Amino acid sequence: MMKLGAFLPAPGHHVAAWRHPHARPDGGLDFDYYRSLVRTAERGRFDMVFLSDGAGVRTTYRDAEELSRQGRMVHFEPLTLLSALAVHTTHIGLTATASTTYNEPFNIARKFASLDFLSSGRSGWNVVTSVTDAEAQNFNLDRQPDHATRYDRAREFMDVVTGLWDSWEDDAFEYDKESGRFFDPDKLHILHHQGKHFSVRGPLNVARPPQGYPVIVQAGSSPDGQDFAARWAEVVFTAQQTLDQARTFYRGIKKQAAEHGRNPDDVKVLPGTFIVVGRTRAEAEDKYAALQDLVDPVVGLGLLTGQLGDVDISGHPLDGPLPDLPPTEGSTSKQQLIYEQARREGLTIRQLYLSVAGGRGHRFLLGTPESIADELEEWFVGEGADGFNIMPDYLPDGLDAIVDLLVPELQRRGLFRTEYEGRTLRDNLGLPRPAFGAARHPAERRA
Amino acid sequence: MMKLGAFLPAPGHHVAAWRHPHARPDGGLDFDYYRSLVRTAERGRFDMVFLSDGAGVRTTYRDAEELSRQGRMVHFEPLTLLSALAVHTTHIGLTATASTTYNEPFNIARKFASLDFLSSGRSGWNVVTSVTDAEAQNFNLDRQPDHATRYDRAREFMDVVTGLWDSWEDDAFEYDKESGRFFDPDKLHILHHQGKHFSVRGPLNVARPPQGYPVIVQAGSSPDGQDFAARWAEVVFTAQQTLDQARTFYRGIKKQAAEHGRNPDDVKVLPGTFIVVGRTRAEAEDKYAALQDLVDPVVGLGLLTGQLGDVDISGHPLDGPLPDLPPTEGSTSKQQLIYEQARREGLTIRQLYLSVAGGRGHRFLLGTPESIADELEEWFVGEGADGFNIMPDYLPDGLDAIVDLLVPELQRRGLFRTEYEGRTLRDNLGLPRPAFGAARHPAERRA
Ligand SMILES: Cc1cc2nc3c(=O)[nH]c(=O)nc-3n(C[C@H](O)[C@H](O)[C@H](O)COP(=O)(O)O)c2cc1C
Ligand SMILES: Cc1cc2nc3c(=O)[nH]c(=O)nc-3n(C[C@H](O)[C@H](O)[C@H](O)COP(=O)(O)O)c2cc1C
Repeated sequence: MMKLGAFLPAPGHHVAAWRHPHARPDGGLDFDYYRSLVRTAERGRFDMVFLSDGAGVRTTYRDAEELSRQGRMVHFEPLTLLSALAVHTTHIGLTATASTTYNEPFNIARKFASLDFLSSGRSGWNVVTSVTDAEAQNFNLDRQPDHATRYDRAREFMDVVTGLWDSWEDDAFEYDKESGRFFDPDKLHILHHQGKHFSVRGPLNVARPPQGYPVIVQAGSSPDGQDFAARWAEVVFTAQQTLDQARTFYRGIKKQAAEHGRNPDDVKVLPGTFIVVGRTRAEAEDKYAALQDLVDPVVGLGLLTGQLGDVDISGHPLDGPLPDLPPTEGSTSKQQLIYEQARREGLTIRQLYLSVAGGRGHRFLLGTPESIADELEEWFVGEGADGFNIMPDYLPDGLDAIVDLLVPELQRRGLFRTEYEGRTLRDNLGLPRPAFGAARHPAERRA
Repeated sequence: MMKLGAFLPAPGHHVAAWRHPHARPDGGLDFDYYRSLVRTAERGRFDMVFLSDGAGVRTTYRDAEELSRQGRMVHFEPLTLLSALAVHTTHIGLTATASTTYNEPFNIARKFASLDFLSSGRSGWNVVTSVTDAEAQNFNLDRQPDHATRYDRAREFMDVVTGLWDSWEDDAFEYDKESGRFFDPDKLHILHHQGKHFSVRGPLNVARPPQGYPVIVQAGSSPDGQDFAARWAEVVFTAQQTLDQARTFYRGIKKQAAEHGRNPDDVKVLPGTFIVVGRTRAEAEDKYAALQDLVDPVVGLGLLTGQLGDVDISGHPLDGPLPDLPPTEGSTSKQQLIYEQARREGLTIRQLYLSVAGGRGHRFLLGTPESIADELEEWFVGEGADGFNIMPDYLPDGLDAIVDLLVPELQRRGLFRTEYEGRTLRDNLGLPRPAFGAARHPAERRA
C-alpha cells in the first residue's frame, strides 16, 4: 500500500494560492479552518498531515514593499496546532517540523512525547536543520552554522532525544497505592549524556511515548542529509523530479539504511508531489492557469531566490537564463535540483519561477484522477517511492478534489487503504514500534 | 470581584494525593482526565487554569528507591496540553509556566502567540526563572545560573518577547487579493534587538495575538522577583501565610508597579491557597487526616528539601528542629517563608513536612464553605489579595467540592462572578488590552 502525507500549509502550495477567490489568506491562524482541512484528509484516509516550519520570516527582499506581496508570512507554530488537532481527530498521523539547530533536545523530546500522549500514538517529528540566515538571526547568530556543523549537531541531538524517550521503560509506572511505590526504580534509566554539542542528564519528565518513539521523519537530501536519513529516518520527505532520479535516491537510502543495520522496509521514501486534479484534463489546466496568472513577478522571483538558498539573482534579466550559482549553506540538495531543472529544460528565470510557483521544485502532476493515479503508480511500482507527500495547489478546494477524485481512484486500484489499519501512526505506516533502547545500538539490531 | 485560578497538577496538590483511592495517579498523561477537570473549573467560572512546570525531574534523592516513592514525576508539557484544552473549552483562561532560563525568546513568543490564537485570546504565560540544578543539567550546565543572572536574563527576555509580539500592528494584514498586497509594509516592525543576553532580529511569524500580549503571570517573590513582577506581571502568584505578610507584599507590588508608571489595578495579586472543604468541619478534617496518614516519611522529607531549595537536611533527626540553612540559589523567597514558619510555630522537621505536604508553603484553609469564604473574604477585603490561585488537595474530588460547595458561597456573597464577563482572559481578569508597542516605554504610559 502507498503511504500518503497531506502537506497542508495555509492557504495552499501555489505561491499565488492566497489570491484565489476561494482561498482563505488568513487561514494560517484559524483553528476551525485547519480542523476542517485535517478532517478532510482523515476522511481521505491519509497516513498523516504534515506541517513544514521555519523559525522566522525570510526578509531578504529588497524592501518591505516587496515582502508585503509574499503570502503566508504568519501561521500557527506547528506543535501547538497539532496538539489542538490531536483532540479533534482519531486516526490521522500528526507530523510537525522542528529544527535541531534552534531548539534544545530536552524541550523537543518533551513536546513530541507530550503530543504522542495527546494523540494516543499519532505523532511524527520532521527533523530539519533549517536553511536560512533569517532564522539564525532570531537566535543570537548572524549567519546559520555551516551545513556540516548543523548535521553534526543533528546527529547528536537524535542520540539525546531518543535516549530521553527511553528514560522510563514502557511498564515502569506501577502506581502502587498500597505500598507507596510510584514506579519500579530498576526501570528508570538516567541518560547522563556528555557529548560535543550537548550535556543532558535526564530523565525526561514524560513517560515513554505510546509509540515508543514518535515517528522520525526527515527532510534534507544532500549526502549528509541522506546519511542522516539512513541512520534515523522512518519517513524521508524528498524532492525528486524524474523517475530515474527518484529510483537512484530510493535505492541509495534503502542501501544505506541496511548498512546501518536497519531493515530497509522501515524507511519509507515519500517524494513531495504537487497535484492539480480535475474531472477532465482541461478542467485541471484551467485551474492551474488561473493560479499562474496570479503570480506577481516580485513574488515569483522571491520564491525562486529562496529555493536556490537565498542566492541573489535580482541583477539578471527575467527573460534570460539562470546564471551559474555560488554554493549555498542552505539546502544544497534543493539548489542542485532546481539548477539541473533549469539546464535540462532550458528555462529562463521567469519560466523557472513559474515552474516552481506550485511545487517549489517538487514533482508536478496535472490531469485527471486516472492520469495522476497512473503517474503515482508508476513511481510506486517502479521503486521510486513508498508513497507521496501530497501538496495541494490551494485550500480547501485542492484537498477536496484530491480526496474526492484521486483517492477513490487509488483505492479502486488497490493501491491505497479504504480503512485505517490501526490507531497509531506506526500502525498505519507499517512501521514497527521500537523496543526500549532500540535507538542506542543500531548495530546490535542487526544481530 | 475576586479573581480565581485553578492550579491543577495531576493528581492534586497534596504530596500523597496519588495514593487516595479516588485519585488517578496516571492522570498527568491523560487528556480526557484533564479535559474533565478543566471543564469543571470552567463550570465554576474560574478565571483560568494554571499549570506549573519544571524542565526536569528532581533527582536529589539518596537513590532511585527513594525517588520511586515520590508521586507525579511524569506529566504533559503544559503548552501542548493547553493547546489541546483550548479547543475543548470556551471561556476559561489557560496559563502555562515556561522558563526564561531554558528557552529562547523567539520560540516562547511564537508558542504563546499561537496558543492565544488557538484559544481566541485566553492564554497566559507564567514567567519563571526556574529553581533547580536538575533542570540546568538537562541544558548543558552543571548548576543553574545564579539568582541575579537568571533575573537579568528574564528582564531582557521580556523586552524581546513583547517586542516580537509587536512585530505586526493589529491591522497589518490586508489580504488584498486584487492588488496582491498581503500586508501593509508600514505596519511591519522588525525588532533588531541587540542586548547582553540576546540578539534577535524578528519579525515574529505569528500575527499580533488577539489579546495584544498573552496575560503575563509571574511567580517569584524575592526582591528581584518583586521588581520583575512590578515591571512586567499582570498576575502575581505568590505564597503568603498571614494576612500581615500578604498585605505587606500586596502593597509593595502595587507601589512598585506605580513607580514603573503602571496602574496598580493592572497587577492582580493571587496568593496560592490550599483548600480542603467539607460540608462540615468534621468532614473536612477527616478528608485531610486520611491524606496525611498516607504521607511516606521519605516523601515528606524529599518535598521539604525541595521547598527549602534542595538544601540537604537528611542528617538531622525527624523529631528535632529545623537547622539553620545555607543560602540557596533556588527560590530564596520560598526558603525564607518555610524557615520562618518553622521558627514561628516551633515545628520539628516531621511536623514541618506534614505542614507543607498539602500546600507546599502556601496558605492552608480547611473547613466549611462558609468558614473558608470568610477567610478568603478577609484577605480580599483587607487588601491582602485580588483573588487566589486555588490548590485542591486531590483530584477530581477536591476540585468538585470547591466548585460545588465553595464557589456558590462566594457567589452568594457577591464576591465572585456567576457568568464570565467576556471571552478573553483579559476581559475576565479586568485587564486592559495593551496597545501596540505598550511594553516598550513604560515611562511613556504614565504620560
Ligand atoms: C523536501 C525537503 C523539505 C524540507 N523542509 C524543511 C522545513 O520544513 N523546514 C526547514 O527548516 N528545512 C526544511 N528542509 C531543509 C532541511 O532543513 C535540511 O535539514 C537542511 O537544510 C539541509 O538540507 P539538505 O540536506 O537537503 O542540504 C527541507 C529539505 C527538503 C529536501
Ligand atoms: C508561588 C511560586 C510559584 C512558583 N512556580 C514555579 C514553577 O512552576 N516553575 C518554576 O520553575 N519555578 C517556579 N517558581 C520559582 C520561580 O522560578 C522564580 O522565578 C525563581 O525561582 C526565583 O524565585 P524567587 O524570586 O522567589 O527567589 C515559583 C515561585 C513562587 C514563589
